Amino acid sequence: MVRWEPGTPERLQEAALELFAVHGFEQTTATAIARSVGLTERTFFRHFADKREVLFYGQDRFVQAFLTGIEAAPRDAAPLEIVASALRSVAAFFPDDRRSSSRKRQDVINHNPALQERERHKFASLATTLADALRARGVDELPATLAAQSGTTVFEVAFTQWIREGEQRSLADITVDVLRELRNLSTTTG
Amino acid sequence: MVRWEPGTPERLQEAALELFAVHGFEQTTATAIARSVGLTERTFFRHFADKREVLFYGQDRFVQAFLTGIEAAPRDAAPLEIVASALRSVAAFFPDDRRSSSRKRQDVINHNPALQERERHKFASLATTLADALRARGVDELPATLAAQSGTTVFEVAFTQWIREGEQRSLADITVDVLRELRNLSTTTG
Repeated sequence: MVRWEPGTPERLQEAALELFAVHGFEQTTATAIARSVGLTERTFFRHFADKREVLFYGQDRFVQAFLTGIEAAPRDAAPLEIVASALRSVAAFFPDDRRSSSRKRQDVINHNPALQERERHKFASLATTLADALRARGVDELPATLAAQSGTTVFEVAFTQWIREGEQRSLADITVDVLRELRNLSTTTG
Repeated sequence: MVRWEPGTPERLQEAALELFAVHGFEQTTATAIARSVGLTERTFFRHFADKREVLFYGQDRFVQAFLTGIEAAPRDAAPLEIVASALRSVAAFFPDDRRSSSRKRQDVINHNPALQERERHKFASLATTLADALRARGVDELPATLAAQSGTTVFEVAFTQWIREGEQRSLADITVDVLRELRNLSTTTG
């Protein structure tokens, strides 16, 4: 009998990121990840199809955080205000105690072209999902597409800054700054 | 002796798009493309490493069109105005007589995940190149990144509309409309 307990995938993910950081993604096996937290390879594969999946665990909740924020926006909000609400919601998904593991995860991805591609695909899908959600609220197709893509860009830029070595601000605060810069793009001179 | 003549890659590209549209990308060989315009497989491979390359031929000039537009912008232009100048320049790269072949090319890409990935990668690289060019003009890092990404998004959205069946407006005119929508994202209500 396999013992199921809440938090097993999270423990495996944390262990995996540590091992990837020390030994490299290619050199780390699923077995090694499982053993490092006293679990079996079999338990690993009950939670993840392969070790790549560990890096993308929680993606559904990540997307859901955006959607929750879209729903929370006032009825008459402008498209970019709806997106700002989504970004506030997703920032709460990344409290500061996740910064270190988020940084480790990104390091692994930045060193592996196939993982980079999957990450790009993830954000392209996210933009499509957000545009659908904006249209479902009655936003026209073109502004929905542009606002969804802008929101995805702001998230990526803010997140990249959040995990930069030495950065102290919260993701929420950085996001506010990035959104402000986005709004100023057509007024501030270069 | 291989006879070199200007326009050979363009002839091969046009022939390839036609054959891809009729028979599908997978089913069309380099030999068939070459023969359809009276050339040999050997000539094909002098111009293209494989048939995928045919779809991405001209990419350097495409990027250069953006960069030329960035250079042409007034010294004190706001980041988004510099990007608008880049978009005007690249719109001239796609006159209406390219609309039909651009539509055929996109159809092939939209039906092939590996080509879609290459297309995503192309636009990610484009955004990086544009951000570098904006920084080289003195734009700060954050607005440079955001303006470059916004410009790439506007191009993709406008281009998708331009090749839609029944669309009559020029890419330049569509781009102006999309840029206006982008500027209005924070003011118009959803």
